[in-house]
Amino acid sequence: MSITIKDVAKKAGVSISTVSRVINSSKPVSSEIRQKVLKIIEDTGYQPNPIARSLVMKKSQLIGVVVPDISNFFIGEILNGIEEIGKMYGYDILLCNTYGQLEQELRYLNLLQAKQVEGIVFMTWKLQDQLVEYIEKIDTPVVLINRNTSKLLIPSVSIDNFQAAYEMTKYIFDNGHKKIALIRNSLDQDAFGFDQFRGYQKALEENGLEIDDNLVRYGNFKLENSYEIVKEFIQKDILPTAIFATSDVMAIGAINCLLDNGYEVPGDVSVVGFNDIKLASIYRPNLTTIHQPIYDIGAVSIRIIVKMINKEELDSNVVILPHELVERDSSKKIK
Amino acid sequence: MSITIKDVAKKAGVSISTVSRVINSSKPVSSEIRQKVLKIIEDTGYQPNPIARSLVMKKSQLIGVVVPDISNFFIGEILNGIEEIGKMYGYDILLCNTYGQLEQELRYLNLLQAKQVEGIVFMTWKLQDQLVEYIEKIDTPVVLINRNTSKLLIPSVSIDNFQAAYEMTKYIFDNGHKKIALIRNSLDQDAFGFDQFRGYQKALEENGLEIDDNLVRYGNFKLENSYEIVKEFIQKDILPTAIFATSDVMAIGAINCLLDNGYEVPGDVSVVGFNDIKLASIYRPNLTTIHQPIYDIGAVSIRIIVKMINKEELDSNVVILPHELVERDSSKKIK
Repeated sequence: MSITIKDVAKKAGVSISTVSRVINSSKPVSSEIRQKVLKIIEDTGYQPNPIARSLVMKKSQLIGVVVPDISNFFIGEILNGIEEIGKMYGYDILLCNTYGQLEQELRYLNLLQAKQVEGIVFMTWKLQDQLVEYIEKIDTPVVLINRNTSKLLIPSVSIDNFQAAYEMTKYIFDNGHKKIALIRNSLDQDAFGFDQFRGYQKALEENGLEIDDNLVRYGNFKLENSYEIVKEFIQKDILPTAIFATSDVMAIGAINCLLDNGYEVPGDVSVVGFNDIKLASIYRPNLTTIHQPIYDIGAVSIRIIVKMINKEELDSNVVILPHELVERDSSKKIK
Repeated sequence: MSITIKDVAKKAGVSISTVSRVINSSKPVSSEIRQKVLKIIEDTGYQPNPIARSLVMKKSQLIGVVVPDISNFFIGEILNGIEEIGKMYGYDILLCNTYGQLEQELRYLNLLQAKQVEGIVFMTWKLQDQLVEYIEKIDTPVVLINRNTSKLLIPSVSIDNFQAAYEMTKYIFDNGHKKIALIRNSLDQDAFGFDQFRGYQKALEENGLEIDDNLVRYGNFKLENSYEIVKEFIQKDILPTAIFATSDVMAIGAINCLLDNGYEVPGDVSVVGFNDIKLASIYRPNLTTIHQPIYDIGAVSIRIIVKMINKEELDSNVVILPHELVERDSSKKIK
């Protein structure tokens, strides 16, 4: 009663292996033959087993990676770790770029499941409630990158953003600075930008400094954006002696604005970053920044996903990798 | 005789919409129910129509994009154009990163077809014969980015790499330079790197200069690589007065090496790039370079793919977009 691949091949006047090629797209087949075979598959109701099987077994050897901005340098470097280690484990990677838009994030999470990925590495600028709700319900293993959150009990890989921002702020203070601006990310109360803000806050408070709201600004990870923020500092005549931007790209935007307006870095203003992307040591002055083990963040996230796929036990749900304050040429001691 | 979605729902003791969710992964379903439904689908041999249909109709609203290096700045900026215009047309984008390895390129081309993308935007550093053979045979529409080649008669989008390199070399010569090094890409006789080399060659020959093999070097698009090349120029005492690197990143690597060794740019050596990525005007000195309409290259490639998907006629198979020589601070006139 049930239609076999042999029946399809016979009706189409082609070999079984040609039918298989059409179904699996494993090798090129001419357009004409492909259409003929697909027509017969449809007419006869033949059920291509490999697809049904892959629906059941979910052995696609595919991992999906969802990120907010593929052209962000930090993310590009994380992807290197994901891809190299993914390949080592025999996984192909499908990448999806969301621009941090909730709608796109949900779309791509859906799409990747429909394409039967075995696991998903997920990164976002802002972990919105709808997203949390969604991720909680799907069965595909998901690992979060660059944040740990009490909102969502799934594995995550990041550095200790609170501690790193604390150390950097303390370092600037210890260098004699009393007016320290923060260009930070995300208003989200449960995101890494907030952790960084708390670190900054703690370091100031410990040293008897108050937070000056005029000097704490929200950046959007774009160079142009921090450029504008610093321009405003200059125009309003509230330029501090130090600027801590929580991404290297935003630090570079800040420095560019200072240089364009005749200020010296670090002569007049010290500027420090966060992440230690490659550009941090390419750009002149080289950036003082927080070194994140960017490649390892990607690599570890894949190792966790593979363990989850294989239903192995995880040592811990929250992986915190070590960071390091790297002193370079964009900051200096003042009296 | 044939099993319907109703039968599956009944056997599983769930609603039809739950079965549909499992099949389409359109909304999250608990792991337990999902497995139950999939088991029944397998046992009964039910053929989930949407999948069979998508096999036949190929209406996945998906476009695959295959690139050699997602963390390459030039490529990251092209992807912006691809994604924004893709979204405008209602397409989701699946990205695949090959590191320029032939094996990976073939794998991902295969995989994307298996995932029923409607079209593929393809970019490679080196168009190898096996790849040409493969692409010729598949029916999914493919657009090539950044090169046009006589080897493969499929649509392509690029600038006139020959003309651009010719103009840049001529510009350097007109600025008084007689020793002009070229850090170029790809040994491939049929790639954009070769076109650029021919442009360089023509400009030199027209002006009565001979090509000095010591000054024509192959770069691999990496900063570290051009850094090493320039270091060798210095060590061998063959440092020219001008260096033309055919990517901005390689130009920056060259400048970094010069600065690290006490040379001034452009005081001692002029260095020019190619592409005009964002970094070209962020880095100090700002790069003199060839401006490519990078966003448009991505955007146009999607427009072509959409036309091909809809079987509309293309105005031309080879789209050449305009370029421009942008004079900034990394080059100067000498006497």
